[in-house]
Formats: sequence, structure tokens, C-alpha cells
Amino acid sequence: MVTLAVDAMGGDDAPREIVKGTVDAAGQLADTQYLLVGREAAIDAELSQLGPVRDRIAIVDAPDVIAMDEVPVEALKRKRGSSIARAVGLVRQGKAQAIVSAGNTGAAVAASYMTLGTLKGIRRPGIAAAFYVKEHPVVVMDVGANIHCKPADLFLYGIMASLYAQEVLGVRTPRIGILNIGEEEKKGIALVRETADLFQRAEPGLDFVGNVEGDAIFRGLCDVIICDGFVGNIVLKVSEGLAENVLHVFMEEFAKCSGGGAALDTFRETLDRFRWRIDYAEQGGAPLLGVNGVCIICHGRSHARAMTNAMRCAVRMVQKNLNHKIEALAARVTPLLAEVD
Amino acid sequence: MVTLAVDAMGGDDAPREIVKGTVDAAGQLADTQYLLVGREAAIDAELSQLGPVRDRIAIVDAPDVIAMDEVPVEALKRKRGSSIARAVGLVRQGKAQAIVSAGNTGAAVAASYMTLGTLKGIRRPGIAAAFYVKEHPVVVMDVGANIHCKPADLFLYGIMASLYAQEVLGVRTPRIGILNIGEEEKKGIALVRETADLFQRAEPGLDFVGNVEGDAIFRGLCDVIICDGFVGNIVLKVSEGLAENVLHVFMEEFAKCSGGGAALDTFRETLDRFRWRIDYAEQGGAPLLGVNGVCIICHGRSHARAMTNAMRCAVRMVQKNLNHKIEALAARVTPLLAEVD
Repeated sequence: MVTLAVDAMGGDDAPREIVKGTVDAAGQLADTQYLLVGREAAIDAELSQLGPVRDRIAIVDAPDVIAMDEVPVEALKRKRGSSIARAVGLVRQGKAQAIVSAGNTGAAVAASYMTLGTLKGIRRPGIAAAFYVKEHPVVVMDVGANIHCKPADLFLYGIMASLYAQEVLGVRTPRIGILNIGEEEKKGIALVRETADLFQRAEPGLDFVGNVEGDAIFRGLCDVIICDGFVGNIVLKVSEGLAENVLHVFMEEFAKCSGGGAALDTFRETLDRFRWRIDYAEQGGAPLLGVNGVCIICHGRSHARAMTNAMRCAVRMVQKNLNHKIEALAARVTPLLAEVD
Repeated sequence: MVTLAVDAMGGDDAPREIVKGTVDAAGQLADTQYLLVGREAAIDAELSQLGPVRDRIAIVDAPDVIAMDEVPVEALKRKRGSSIARAVGLVRQGKAQAIVSAGNTGAAVAASYMTLGTLKGIRRPGIAAAFYVKEHPVVVMDVGANIHCKPADLFLYGIMASLYAQEVLGVRTPRIGILNIGEEEKKGIALVRETADLFQRAEPGLDFVGNVEGDAIFRGLCDVIICDGFVGNIVLKVSEGLAENVLHVFMEEFAKCSGGGAALDTFRETLDRFRWRIDYAEQGGAPLLGVNGVCIICHGRSHARAMTNAMRCAVRMVQKNLNHKIEALAARVTPLLAEVD
């Protein structure tokens, strides 16, 4: 049995979509149970709307809510009874194995990092986001948890994201690339060159393909792309903004077309599938890898389906014992990293 | 009269598309003349195919060609007679006022920087790329010329890109944002915070809006976005890869739709306009701002229309005397930059 601590108050459409996603997950995922963390009355009201669905779902009261735009660490200090802090606390106490939150990303990262600590051999956690544009996932890590990365951090991101791709997303032998401005070996900033050097010196078993450019995410040239959290967050936001805008532009051009409006109805389903494929927020959450526990971060505008997908990912991470595998692989590279410190 | 030195050998479809774009430009732009720089016989053969069109077009022979994947500085040293080096030389000698090239970007940047030097008050040149997704341009600078930026460099990029947006792209009062991972003032890396500080201390006249996230490029929140060349190049490549892929995904989903194939014909024009709006390579070139001359860098896969658009941009930069205006504004901020050195 896997127990998830769900931050019921986090996200633009919380608690409604979070509760709905949880009920759906409970219906779909065997051997799971759910602790909905947040304001009891509000959660209860949403659950009531969904009928007699409380099987394997319980509420854990948390009086405070951290808003999307609050400064994370300050908010965590001021609001000790926030839903995210309580959810992380449940994992810390062993009452749950994973946290799922669509709330303030910085708060979820800070609460998990500070309360759970890191896995053995890992220095800094990072967020691994999967892009699905060509059916196959491409994992980009880190997309915003750690903006001051050292080569050892990036190297460990490669290891963690690679294991995640393999164990959770089903990529057989993940090819790892490092984001750079050109593919030649000598190109780019020192951080990137020194990280590449670590991969070259590491024992075999990691399929490191070297430098890749930004478009590699969408070209299937590799399965894992590592970068620091500053660059990765910008990549994520650019992709998000562009995908959204492209849909908008398309609708606009389509409407200009004679008969476009009526034809649009015909293609509604096509457009929905199209939107789903280019909108990563629809596809579930991104794990914060490296913390001593499982924490899945969802997009603030996640709807029920995305939440259910994120919960499926959390369950899989627990069942596959991903953290244990990360520690085992990290232990093997510890001597190498000690050399470069 | 404005004279352009066109690198006839640069680009995936050179010299054909370059020559065609030049002939079109000559037909469309008054008071302009063109020096097609490259292998005389190859250029001559292309010109002959286009009929008696040599009015205001001359050929300047250059025996060498730098390939798209050559290491720029090495290639420039080895191939002294390359089309790009000769084109830059023509500007240096005063025989032309601007270079237009769809060749190896690094070679165009290095040749221009080393041969022409920088404008007074400017330390490092940068490439300013315009994104047009919402009809209005958003200029991102630098997209790859300078990966080791100091705050003063980024600040000057703001000034240069802002003047370019105003004078060449017709943005009345450009709002300048700095790319960061959050909008709060304290967020992000030191480079960004120190650059923001320079804008706060600069005399009024620049409309600095502070931090913006990656999606701002597509949301119309500002008109100029500054970042270092490492981040900017990744943004450019991610956008390019995503836009291309989105078209691919759309076609794929459309084909699955019953009657999709036939319907696609109906919407061919819509799709063409859609592609044009999301594909920056179609929209002309990106100027290398800060060099003592005008240099427009085009995408390697530019077709004739993109080349003509880039030439129009070059002519406008010369006619508007953009470099003179950049030097005037740079002179006014020189005391401030001297303080932080």
C-alpha cells in the first residue's frame, strides 16, 4: 500500500481540481491511499459533491494556505500550519511516502529540502520535467530548484534523471545530454565543460552523448537533458509560453479562413489531442529528485487529469524504489566527486 | 544610396536563395545597391537564371567558403579569402555600409567584431533576435554572441536593443525586461540583480520593467528582453525546435482526423501563415548590435524571402543611423558604468 499526502490547497483551482483528481486516482490506482491535506471544511465540501467516494481517502486538517505568489521561505516560517508543510511532515513522520502539490513551487521545494533532507550522496535536489512532444519523453533537469549549480550537481542530476526516465517513464537506456550553445566539445561555459569532463571520467553504464542545443528537447536526440535551474526554468517557461501562443495564433488564423469556425468544430478532437501533446501541464507533475522522500510538483493550473497523472507518477516512484536506486548509483560515483571537490 | 555586402555563399541554400533574395531586394528597395560576395562563377550562374536583373548588383569574388559547422576563429584564420571575411572587409574599407550573412554565425560575429571593432562606449557586441508571435515584435538580446556577460554588457544590450526596437521595428517606447526565474526583485543570479540595479540607477528615459520570466517573450509584457548569450541562444533554439515540432505534431494529428488530408488542402494558406508567424527564420535576420558597422545575421536555412527581409532591416539600420544613436546614448551612461567597474 502506498500512501500519498496530497496538498489539497495548492494550485489555481484548488481544492476542487485537486480533490477531483484524488478521487479519480483512488478509482484507478490499486493499493493506494490518500491523505488530503488542507482546510477540512473546504475539502469536505468538494468531496461531498463527488458522492460517496471516501474509500481510501482521508482528510488531514491544515489551517494555513501559502499563496502562489508568496516568497517561499518567509511564507513557510510565518505559516507553520500550511497544507504543504503538513503534507511534507506526514512523509517525514512515515505516515505517507509521497507528497503531490500544485501549489507554490518554491514552498514545496523548500519544505521538502529542509524537512526531509537529501538522499545519501546527493548534494542538491532538482526538479525533473518530462517533455512529451514526440511521444517519447525527454526529461529536463533541473527546471528551477537550484540556480547555483556546481559540476557535481549537474552530474548527479544526470544520474537521477536517467534513473527516473528508466524506472518511471520506461526509457530503456537513457541517453544523457548537457545543454550548451553548440555541440563541439570546447564550446560553452566552464560549468558545462567541467560537468562533461565528469561524465567522461565516470565508470561506464551512463550513456552520455555530450553537448546538445536547445532544440534537442524536441528532436529526440537524447532522453535526458541536464542544465542548471536558472537555464532550465527559462526553458520550461519559454516552452510553455510558446506552446500556448502557438495555439492562440493557430486559432486566430483558422478563424480568418472561410468556413474556419465551422471546420474548427470538426477538428475539435484533433485540437484537443494537439493541445494535450504540447502542454506539459496536462501531463502530470515533475518530481523533485534528490530529497529523502518522494515529492511531485505540479503546474499551478493543473486540472484533475494532470493531478491524477502526477499521483500515478508518485506511486510508481515509490513502488520502483527509485530513491534506493539513486543512492546506490550515487555511492558508486562518490569517490570521483570527492576528487574534484 | 546604401550599399550592402551580401555573403552569397553562406547558408544551407547558398548561393541560390541568397542571390534570389538579393535580386528581390533590389527590386523592392529604393536607393540601394548590392555587392554579392563569393565564388564569381557560381553567383553568375544563379544571376543568369533570373534574367537581366543586374541593375545595382555587382559581384565581388571570394574564393573560400566557411562551412556551417567549422570552428569560426580557426576557419577565419585558415581561409583568408572567405566570402564572410571579404564582405566584412568591404564595410571596413567603406565600400559598403552593411553585411548580410546566412552563413556560419560564429564566423560572421568573429569577423565583424575583430575587423570592425565596437562602437564607442560599447564593450561587447550581441545579437538581437525579434520574435513576432503576437504581431508585435519582442527583441531578445543576446542570443549567442557573448556567453560571458557582465552587468554592464547586459545593461548596454538593453540600450542597444531598445533603440533597435524603436528605430527599426517601430516600437514607440520599448519596455525593457531582464530574463529571470521569477518576477520578484530579489530572485535569480547575481548577474541579473546587478544589471537590474544599473537600470534603477540610470537616468530616466529607459522604460525598465524589471524581471520577466521565459514566457514573457510570448505574452507581450515587454518589448525588449535582455539575457546573456548562453541563455539567449538556448531560448532561441528551444523556440525554434518547439515551433517546428508543434507543426509536425499538428500535421500528424490532422492526418488522423477523418478527411484530414483533404481538409488540410483547404487550410494550406492558413497553415502557411501560421508557419510564417511562428518561424522566426522566415522573418529576416538578427542584427549584431554594437559593432562599428551594420551586420545582419540570418538563419542558415533562410530562403529568398527571409534574405530580402534581412536586407530591408540592414538598409533601415543604415538610413536611421542607428549606430550613431547608440553611441550618443552610450556616452550618457559611461559615467555610471565607470563607477561599477
